[in-house]
Amino acid sequence: MVRKLTLAAAFMLAVAARAWAADPLPSWNDGGARRAIVSFVERVTKDGGPDYVPPAERIAVFDNDGTLWSEQPTYGQLAFAIDRVNALAPSHSEWKATQPFKAVLDGDAKALGAAGERGLLQLVMATHAGITAEEFDQIVKAWIATARHPKTGRLYTDMVYQPMLELLAYLRANGFKTFIVSGGGVEFMRPWAERVYGVPPEQVVGSSVRLKYEVRGGQPVLLRLPELNFIDDREGKPVGIQQHIGRRPIAAFGNSDGDFQMLEWTAAGRGARLAVIVHHDDAAREAAYDRESRIGRLARGLDEAGPRGWVVASMKKDWKLVFPEIPASK
Amino acid sequence: MVRKLTLAAAFMLAVAARAWAADPLPSWNDGGARRAIVSFVERVTKDGGPDYVPPAERIAVFDNDGTLWSEQPTYGQLAFAIDRVNALAPSHSEWKATQPFKAVLDGDAKALGAAGERGLLQLVMATHAGITAEEFDQIVKAWIATARHPKTGRLYTDMVYQPMLELLAYLRANGFKTFIVSGGGVEFMRPWAERVYGVPPEQVVGSSVRLKYEVRGGQPVLLRLPELNFIDDREGKPVGIQQHIGRRPIAAFGNSDGDFQMLEWTAAGRGARLAVIVHHDDAAREAAYDRESRIGRLARGLDEAGPRGWVVASMKKDWKLVFPEIPASK
Repeated sequence: MVRKLTLAAAFMLAVAARAWAADPLPSWNDGGARRAIVSFVERVTKDGGPDYVPPAERIAVFDNDGTLWSEQPTYGQLAFAIDRVNALAPSHSEWKATQPFKAVLDGDAKALGAAGERGLLQLVMATHAGITAEEFDQIVKAWIATARHPKTGRLYTDMVYQPMLELLAYLRANGFKTFIVSGGGVEFMRPWAERVYGVPPEQVVGSSVRLKYEVRGGQPVLLRLPELNFIDDREGKPVGIQQHIGRRPIAAFGNSDGDFQMLEWTAAGRGARLAVIVHHDDAAREAAYDRESRIGRLARGLDEAGPRGWVVASMKKDWKLVFPEIPASK
Repeated sequence: MVRKLTLAAAFMLAVAARAWAADPLPSWNDGGARRAIVSFVERVTKDGGPDYVPPAERIAVFDNDGTLWSEQPTYGQLAFAIDRVNALAPSHSEWKATQPFKAVLDGDAKALGAAGERGLLQLVMATHAGITAEEFDQIVKAWIATARHPKTGRLYTDMVYQPMLELLAYLRANGFKTFIVSGGGVEFMRPWAERVYGVPPEQVVGSSVRLKYEVRGGQPVLLRLPELNFIDDREGKPVGIQQHIGRRPIAAFGNSDGDFQMLEWTAAGRGARLAVIVHHDDAAREAAYDRESRIGRLARGLDEAGPRGWVVASMKKDWKLVFPEIPASK
């Protein structure tokens, strides 16, 4: 009986392995988006072909929020900042009477919304700065290991998109270097991007605060200052790409108008180019939002994707699966 | 006769290949510096050993000027800026009467020296900005292909240190990612660092000007603004490392006090660490300078290397060869 089971298990494993070898994108339905991606990869990797690109120049850039993981009902980094405000509140009695902190402590979503971008920035500066880079790294690691999505109860790191994980691996298997280029904080993503996406810290580009080098009692530290260093969004994305990567990508993946310039910059290069917009049109499995959404607004991208030859991937039609299947016990 | 020569050539090639396989650092004499480097690499790559470091964390950082290539009698980038001032002078008649431009046009080294760091910055801003990133890339490529060192008459890219080229290759062969972390302009190094050092653009960190994304007649460009974005020197080096790489290096190589904090930051990490200072003490083969030099001043590093356990590599004693041997016809 044991032998029989082992044989059966081995057989199933072999079938699964063959299926993967045959199809590196098993969660993508056979449609326009998948075909455009595979055709592009085949063209740029075909040695001697007219569109061949040497491996060193195979740079692919991915937005994070809404492209690699869910950004609804709100950004993971905002959930992190809110949790930090609550954790730090005992030593900040003044927050009880100061917006936007009061809104967070009262759980008042309306007041928090009214605080706008300036309010969000205040939250981030109060919770992401005044500590060293190593301390922040540890705090993010502890949070991401336990924090759960408010709707699904899953870990945030299980709110990543299975088809995009396959796409990252498929591109790397074809000699691409995969980079994250996100409006989110670079030091908020780096502590887990390697484990979750296979993207090492040096291939994560994002927004940042200024750092200050100090020697404290003989030990050097990098102190996180409450000052913005760089905002890696919209026109900032091509700038971040140039400053950090120094080479124009040949493939770019985004989901909102915050990614427009990154796709535009990528697509305008010479030779074969791929620009893909992930369209959130699947209310049943995730969320349906675009033109009117406060988070991840997508209007110009939808209007111009067609004439520009960009690919719009429909979560509903192009994806067999949205999130990774995880054991029920988890 | 042809057959005989071919056999002889094949034999010599085989001998050379064996020698390289046996010794990846043929230009390093058997001394303290070489032994410290090899011992470090063996320890961090020994699977199961107490000092083992996984490949993803094997980050090595190299200063450029004075560490990978010569910085005497002056920085290559300053020679480039001076050549640019002369090339652009016909459309800048005002430069004839304005310092530091007048000093450059008159070939007046004393007046140029008197202009100080502020003057140098003015030269860089006037010659490195106001054009797109792609235009600058082309200008650097054209310059580096032809510009020659004022003393040796060699191409600047032949003024690199052979032992350091071997070291870069040796580290990469042992699973390291090699980065340049230089006070020089990042976009001045990227156009040739891959060809000369084997370091791709995304692994070059340096000083930078601000960039602006613009769409001109339907074509997006990145405009180089005459504003400093970041100075990657002294305390700026650990900051640049954190912003760009996001991981503390385990090995660092420098030559001046501008590299002190980079070595300090690297050496202060947990586990096996290697910090090396290249000491310019070879007046016969290159130049001898340290404490009193205006360029590449090295004083604190010399004083503290011993107590801190950093390695001082003497160009005179530790290096068999300084520059690559190149054909006389070149």
